[in-house]
Amino acid sequence: MIKKIGDTIIFKNNPTIIAGCSVVGPKEKNSLLNKYFDKIMQNDICGEKTYEKAERKFMEHAITGAIKKAGLTTNDIDFLISGDLLDQIISSNFVARILNTSFIGIFGACSNMSLSLALGACIIEAGVANYVACATSSHFSTAERQFRFPLELGCQRPPTAQWTVTASGCSILSNNQKGHKIIGATIGKVVDFGINDVNNMGAAMAPAAADTLDRLFKDTKTTPKDYDLIVTGDLGKLGSELLLDLLEQKGYSNIQNHRDCGQIIYSDTQKSYMGGSGCGCGASVFNSYFLDKLTLGEYKKIIFMATGALLSPLSSQQGESIPSIAHAIIIEKGY
Amino acid sequence: MIKKIGDTIIFKNNPTIIAGCSVVGPKEKNSLLNKYFDKIMQNDICGEKTYEKAERKFMEHAITGAIKKAGLTTNDIDFLISGDLLDQIISSNFVARILNTSFIGIFGACSNMSLSLALGACIIEAGVANYVACATSSHFSTAERQFRFPLELGCQRPPTAQWTVTASGCSILSNNQKGHKIIGATIGKVVDFGINDVNNMGAAMAPAAADTLDRLFKDTKTTPKDYDLIVTGDLGKLGSELLLDLLEQKGYSNIQNHRDCGQIIYSDTQKSYMGGSGCGCGASVFNSYFLDKLTLGEYKKIIFMATGALLSPLSSQQGESIPSIAHAIIIEKGY
Repeated sequence: MIKKIGDTIIFKNNPTIIAGCSVVGPKEKNSLLNKYFDKIMQNDICGEKTYEKAERKFMEHAITGAIKKAGLTTNDIDFLISGDLLDQIISSNFVARILNTSFIGIFGACSNMSLSLALGACIIEAGVANYVACATSSHFSTAERQFRFPLELGCQRPPTAQWTVTASGCSILSNNQKGHKIIGATIGKVVDFGINDVNNMGAAMAPAAADTLDRLFKDTKTTPKDYDLIVTGDLGKLGSELLLDLLEQKGYSNIQNHRDCGQIIYSDTQKSYMGGSGCGCGASVFNSYFLDKLTLGEYKKIIFMATGALLSPLSSQQGESIPSIAHAIIIEKGY
Repeated sequence: MIKKIGDTIIFKNNPTIIAGCSVVGPKEKNSLLNKYFDKIMQNDICGEKTYEKAERKFMEHAITGAIKKAGLTTNDIDFLISGDLLDQIISSNFVARILNTSFIGIFGACSNMSLSLALGACIIEAGVANYVACATSSHFSTAERQFRFPLELGCQRPPTAQWTVTASGCSILSNNQKGHKIIGATIGKVVDFGINDVNNMGAAMAPAAADTLDRLFKDTKTTPKDYDLIVTGDLGKLGSELLLDLLEQKGYSNIQNHRDCGQIIYSDTQKSYMGGSGCGCGASVFNSYFLDKLTLGEYKKIIFMATGALLSPLSSQQGESIPSIAHAIIIEKGY
């Protein structure tokens, strides 16, 4: 008898989140959530020669910061699970080179944070680790030039565009310790509704988000009202509206407790159009604002689900639409 | 008390490999191992418009073939774990779109096969899955043009170069079933000896391979002689020589039982220079030749360790050396 109902894993061995850390850039300094972030970098180049090298600094600070907040040292970490948006996940690879810990590289595009948490929880559940670090990052200037256009072109952004968050987040998972409990996880399936506009990721990812949530609710025999919050990673304003529409079609109407990290990270004056995006968006907001709210007891039980658009520039050039995925974890307040 | 000694996971819940399938291309048709492969494609474009779309066909055939050999259907598979060499692992993403199974995307470069097997074994060990499919692929024509030069340039290959194998392999893992047992796994750390020649991957990866093997032997208190074979993924001739040199420096001398999939897949007349490379190299040879030899009883206990060079073209252009990783699993003959 496996610990899984339908597609949803039910954890029995108490994998818990014992610490989280978020490191953000200068645009995020002016975020509405800025007081929750652990570290705000004064500029987005961090004294490095390239933005790609700078992105690694954000991730390195987030991981070492989370380890420190957990009262541990790098040597205590059994596994680092990390991925990012850059080709061949070089941010994660080069940070892992410094940290000298057993390293599991993942790629789920912007779903990396919840994918790493779900995988980390499985590893804790297997009883093969005391501590797992789960991390991801994104950087506006690395993502923009890799996925879209050279920054120097100054291309106009369409109204459906989102702004890639320059940030990294890391959570430390442990077994049988005080912390917020990961009680379940629904690993996503790849869903593709045929969206092919690379400036409309929210629309591409919303169907995957609706699919995963629908399965999670059915598997656990719960409804949206059974959770204090349903938190998504970076659907943005349009994607969030589409998610609620799609959920309504599936019979979940009038959902009031959905929040999207991409929608709340920037203020309206910050010209992010549909909001924030990138792995670092959900990762930084989850590991600061939402973990804090759980600790404070404002929320008792939440779903955190990051969503990813699994395209590459090449797949788009070859005429493919944008397949997407969403991984959800269910977290109960601990401590 | 966690089920891990040092850096090596010790599996207690009997994760087993119940089937493997390999699908290879026309160059591999002339391989010395051709009679072991499950399916040989007559050409490397598979009726598609691009090589990238063709690579997905190889992977799709390998996964569905392995599921069929295990006597299962796609619906029986709890999780698909897959990664590949292409930016944003699009081969895996687009195959997962067809298969409609919960999907965990990974990236370990050419170490994907053993990384997916180690992760899959953890998921089985956690008791959250009955069946996990672990897959990867590579394609000469997609890898060459992404990592090196356009094929049309006809660039001369240096003598240290290897030939990316056009192939895909998939293993099906299960719990408490007859099959070859995964009894341990050492997840690699990122090792970088400063090699920066993208045409000498064997030299870049050999230090990571030596590091992982050394830790595996020390953790399990075994020596190379305790295994019938130590199988690496795609170190090639030069990388294999370097691995043995490095192991000798670490005190493991005169190792006779090392085999490298990259070194044995092509014959000397096939102009592959240092041998085969790519995720598909280790994946196809492991899931055919070595699984068959285990089943036949020629080997009772082997180490399978795929190695990955964690560079991107961009990281090389920005002056970085090539960080590498090696993930090892220990397999005992079952059935």
